[in-house]
Amino acid sequence: MTDSSTNMRLKLPITCFILEIILIILFGVLVVYDDDTDAKAFNKNMKMNNSTAGGHNGHGSGTSDDTDYNNDFYYRYPSFQDVHVMIFIGFGFLMTFLQRYGFSSVGFNFLIAALSLQWATLMQGFFHGLHEDGKIHIGVESMINADFCTGSVLISFGAVLGKTSPLQLLIMAVFEVTLFAVNEFILLSMLGTRDAGGSMTIHTFGAYFGLMVTRILYRPKLEQSKHKNSSVYHSDLFAMIGTIYLWMFWPSFNSAVTAHGDPQHRTAMNTYYSLAACTLSTYAMSALTAHDGKLDMVHIQNAALAGGVAAGTAGEMMLTPFGSMIVGFLAGIISVLGYKYLSPILEEKLKIQDTCGVHNLHGMPGILGAIVGAVTTAVVPKEVYGNGLIKVFPDVASGDRETTYQAGVQAISLVITLAIAIFGGLIVGFILKLQVLGAPRDNACFEDSVYWEVPGEEHFEEELTAVRTEETDKMNS
Amino acid sequence: MTDSSTNMRLKLPITCFILEIILIILFGVLVVYDDDTDAKAFNKNMKMNNSTAGGHNGHGSGTSDDTDYNNDFYYRYPSFQDVHVMIFIGFGFLMTFLQRYGFSSVGFNFLIAALSLQWATLMQGFFHGLHEDGKIHIGVESMINADFCTGSVLISFGAVLGKTSPLQLLIMAVFEVTLFAVNEFILLSMLGTRDAGGSMTIHTFGAYFGLMVTRILYRPKLEQSKHKNSSVYHSDLFAMIGTIYLWMFWPSFNSAVTAHGDPQHRTAMNTYYSLAACTLSTYAMSALTAHDGKLDMVHIQNAALAGGVAAGTAGEMMLTPFGSMIVGFLAGIISVLGYKYLSPILEEKLKIQDTCGVHNLHGMPGILGAIVGAVTTAVVPKEVYGNGLIKVFPDVASGDRETTYQAGVQAISLVITLAIAIFGGLIVGFILKLQVLGAPRDNACFEDSVYWEVPGEEHFEEELTAVRTEETDKMNS
Amino acid sequence: MTDSSTNMRLKLPITCFILEIILIILFGVLVVYDDDTDAKAFNKNMKMNNSTAGGHNGHGSGTSDDTDYNNDFYYRYPSFQDVHVMIFIGFGFLMTFLQRYGFSSVGFNFLIAALSLQWATLMQGFFHGLHEDGKIHIGVESMINADFCTGSVLISFGAVLGKTSPLQLLIMAVFEVTLFAVNEFILLSMLGTRDAGGSMTIHTFGAYFGLMVTRILYRPKLEQSKHKNSSVYHSDLFAMIGTIYLWMFWPSFNSAVTAHGDPQHRTAMNTYYSLAACTLSTYAMSALTAHDGKLDMVHIQNAALAGGVAAGTAGEMMLTPFGSMIVGFLAGIISVLGYKYLSPILEEKLKIQDTCGVHNLHGMPGILGAIVGAVTTAVVPKEVYGNGLIKVFPDVASGDRETTYQAGVQAISLVITLAIAIFGGLIVGFILKLQVLGAPRDNACFEDSVYWEVPGEEHFEEELTAVRTEETDKMNS
Repeated sequence: MTDSSTNMRLKLPITCFILEIILIILFGVLVVYDDDTDAKAFNKNMKMNNSTAGGHNGHGSGTSDDTDYNNDFYYRYPSFQDVHVMIFIGFGFLMTFLQRYGFSSVGFNFLIAALSLQWATLMQGFFHGLHEDGKIHIGVESMINADFCTGSVLISFGAVLGKTSPLQLLIMAVFEVTLFAVNEFILLSMLGTRDAGGSMTIHTFGAYFGLMVTRILYRPKLEQSKHKNSSVYHSDLFAMIGTIYLWMFWPSFNSAVTAHGDPQHRTAMNTYYSLAACTLSTYAMSALTAHDGKLDMVHIQNAALAGGVAAGTAGEMMLTPFGSMIVGFLAGIISVLGYKYLSPILEEKLKIQDTCGVHNLHGMPGILGAIVGAVTTAVVPKEVYGNGLIKVFPDVASGDRETTYQAGVQAISLVITLAIAIFGGLIVGFILKLQVLGAPRDNACFEDSVYWEVPGEEHFEEELTAVRTEETDKMNS
Repeated sequence: MTDSSTNMRLKLPITCFILEIILIILFGVLVVYDDDTDAKAFNKNMKMNNSTAGGHNGHGSGTSDDTDYNNDFYYRYPSFQDVHVMIFIGFGFLMTFLQRYGFSSVGFNFLIAALSLQWATLMQGFFHGLHEDGKIHIGVESMINADFCTGSVLISFGAVLGKTSPLQLLIMAVFEVTLFAVNEFILLSMLGTRDAGGSMTIHTFGAYFGLMVTRILYRPKLEQSKHKNSSVYHSDLFAMIGTIYLWMFWPSFNSAVTAHGDPQHRTAMNTYYSLAACTLSTYAMSALTAHDGKLDMVHIQNAALAGGVAAGTAGEMMLTPFGSMIVGFLAGIISVLGYKYLSPILEEKLKIQDTCGVHNLHGMPGILGAIVGAVTTAVVPKEVYGNGLIKVFPDVASGDRETTYQAGVQAISLVITLAIAIFGGLIVGFILKLQVLGAPRDNACFEDSVYWEVPGEEHFEEELTAVRTEETDKMNS
Repeated sequence: MTDSSTNMRLKLPITCFILEIILIILFGVLVVYDDDTDAKAFNKNMKMNNSTAGGHNGHGSGTSDDTDYNNDFYYRYPSFQDVHVMIFIGFGFLMTFLQRYGFSSVGFNFLIAALSLQWATLMQGFFHGLHEDGKIHIGVESMINADFCTGSVLISFGAVLGKTSPLQLLIMAVFEVTLFAVNEFILLSMLGTRDAGGSMTIHTFGAYFGLMVTRILYRPKLEQSKHKNSSVYHSDLFAMIGTIYLWMFWPSFNSAVTAHGDPQHRTAMNTYYSLAACTLSTYAMSALTAHDGKLDMVHIQNAALAGGVAAGTAGEMMLTPFGSMIVGFLAGIISVLGYKYLSPILEEKLKIQDTCGVHNLHGMPGILGAIVGAVTTAVVPKEVYGNGLIKVFPDVASGDRETTYQAGVQAISLVITLAIAIFGGLIVGFILKLQVLGAPRDNACFEDSVYWEVPGEEHFEEELTAVRTEETDKMNS
């Protein structure tokens, strides 16, 4: 299965080296430690005598300054690592459901995520992180935000899965990260939109961007690879590793960058109940709609997660567990219906070949989440928040705007996000059509061996060949 | 493999929808945020001027109130997520060892856990969480307790694995969660029993409840599915993912709801050493008892975890690492001997078909843990705890009872737990015999395709068929 | 595949029992809780009236002492669990890439890690943890250090993977842990070397120790097992689970025992960027050097991690993200070149059969990390650290030495580490040659069935046999 246009010997190394060298130079010029990671800044008030150094038991030491516990690291690092697992294990393994695309699913996920988080640090820092000194100051919160932006790229990857070269994916990542940062800047910094878990900025954006890219890259003859565009028993189990990790850590995802204290706590809990309710409606709808009343792994692997997406905006608000469960319940229903009825229509009528069904997992639930966020903003009186209002709606707490105005801002933000995602995806889709980027042929999609050295399949194929050969020999003799 | 009685098209959706709608209504009526998750309550003492809002770098913001670090979220959320991984990945994948039951193991685990944690929130809240306002106040600690209760249901699932429909499992979960909450209320709230890691409330209860259910559901003709009641090479590797996660995070499990500070720290450490010692005795006993001196994966996958179960009650006490290692060492020995010698007897003589051997992993080690807890309570003088006594034995610290009395309470609690579990399991077993619940036939146990749409096995079967067909054709020609 | 010399029925149980009993006795005599895990010591200043006990919601309780949040548990336990996952899932699954050695990779990893962490607690405690009372005081930091030491043993395991019995591995672990503690004591306690993430103490030591052991155990006829010394499609996916977990949690590894506050935060962030840059250079080099421009899973699984190893010493210093990315970028290039060009030379010329290529992942990147550490120490002016200098270079902050002197110490430490590792590995290699330890025969390496009961392969082999038999029968008739 060799093909000169898909050969990556020079294209991929050159692209990776150039991108990484540009990143390193820009980091050297623009990026510095923030106050919680910088030795001088963090310890500027430290009294020398209340701190002892030198470890009593090995590698390090445990100097305990009075303010150490207030380092943002201790508020956010556990959440960061959960998000990190979602990005690399969650997204990576969720996409291994294809029978012969496991290396690419995990491996390209790994590659484009490693690029995206670096580029996102710069783009997000450039748009909303520049300090008065003209530098980008980074710490654990910017690491989480970089991972968030990366998640958006990986959602788009899900739409084009199996049909793109690693080179196309790297190029897509560079553009998508940039547009993500623009959209995020407009929403969070200019408009004061609240979207802690990214129903709009991450999920809606990533989904519709990816759907537009895959629309432009439409392959009329994709059925030539149809037999590989499906799962096998073990690949579905690998995919469940991804699903379960995404499901478990979604409370951390939605709460990772909310304000300290009650918002982090509340967001995690709201998401937990939203997901639990979503799981029950997903199983119900899967049995109801699938063949013979049997459960369909595609639904379980994906729709059960829609409750996390849909709680992404309102999760930090006083949504209550009750409200969260209603949201999750609806998200699961919508998502399964999407897989069952809408996806075939999108493919046949709109020519959108959405490999992972990101429209059902991230697109519609993302929009639902945005709407729930706007409604919750409008409906819950600000008195319910008490002094905590400043942590959730700072612009309302400061008296700059009313909750109804804020709700309007939330709604407009969804429209803006959709517009930038769709328009951006269209443009980037055309860029990715460049022949030189090495997309696989129509009959070689969903196949690892185009870009990977693939080992044999446990001697079975060899043995089968041996059996066949023996037979033939015997027949001929 | 279709069978009208096992068809879930209507039964499963109706059950899921009814249960979820009841849950949502009850949450709406009964459940509110606790003081650490509620915006108004948590920030009631916040001074407006020492807190700034609005994120400097993206999605959220890092307002730093003086009391934010004392939010229970920061003490318990990392432990919660470890417990969460044990429930969904640990239990789920541990049970994928069966060759054709991976979808059901992970998938039904997922479904009944999602139901149980919601129902447990209500039942546990109803029994010991009702505030003076008649509401259930929830936060991260109640989330952990809900996951704990769920763990108990999943232990029982291990006993009936492969022989029940998802509908039976949902019904079992509803009843078991309820009885779990009753037993927990009697022990922890009425008697003042200490059982932070749940040797009694979770493991002993879940194991004997499940054993009784499987006893009532006894299938004399189960050998018709015997060839599927075993592992294959890859399924054993998937199961090891479950094992290792359970093993690694058990220190978090046992310490997740202990008092802040030293008890959490000490419990995690005791469990760590108990598990390490248990692993060595498990490998030793496996090689000693298994065929040809070879190691048996069943032992490694299960018995190596017994040290965590057995440290569930005494882990928070001043058990010392030395004591913990003795406990773990014994637990590993008992557990392997159970798999080798006791399980066949239970099946043949007592007609208890215990698919995962939960009696060996949770039953006997749970009882051992309860006994170790009672003995440790009696033997360690209260002076050893100093001021910390109040965190471990509040009733002793307050002068209400002596350590010997507390030890007696611990012992009685084991008896009560066994009684409720056995009696409850019997009743629920009979309920689950209802034909309408759609149990698989005797020759279709341990088989995913009864309830799942199952993809092919990587073309091998097809190719084998092709080979056979070709042969036949050639033979005939 | 039975062989009396490899039969472990008595050898393995006797060894495990003796080792564990010795450990238990030594723990009983030598080990006590440290001040943060001991009930009396931690609460010695607790006022009885500001603490209430008894849980409001179930199993435990949340007494909130004013100083609870300063318990080292809350600073380090999340990092500990990440390290724990790297040790048991990361190392364990990384080595499952071999087609028929998955049980042994995960299972022996599990066994020797469980032994090593107990023995390491004693050895590290003996060398640098003895208190004035003659006891070893333990807590979460010593648990992390024990896991670190275990990591070193697992690196050596990677070099001899597939060619040793579990008995040989246990013996190797006992000696290696001891020598690790000696080297660590010389570096960290005597010389005041800084090596928080263990580029020298863990990676360089483990790699060169293992390389020397495998050199002494050289098998001229290893090609008899050659067909099993390779991966299959699914085993490569299992290995990616290990890779990704190591990659994600490496920031926690390097920062786990640094001083509280900014050093932990900074180290995690430096490692994050080092790894991201390393991933891009790894993919680039893999496509550049591999057959047909296709990516090689061996490179992705291993070389992408070299950035974590190389940031192990300088990670806590003011290396900057810019510096970290350069280090990671170089580490990835070196590591892939090692796999491609150096490993074959080591095997052919130096007779070093390095199954996992630990020289490329831990050896060379470890040396690079040590050099980067020395250079960073020398180059960054101490003024850059401000008051924080005491947390990173306590001996420089106290005025005992200059940064250039410290840099010299760092460089000498590398030489000492290499000397102890190489000399120690040679000696231990000879000990492991003892016939009685039951090494597999040359034609039975990389094969689980020597030491494990292995189930069939999903009926395919049986079916193949059936097909063959049928044929033969038909042919003969």
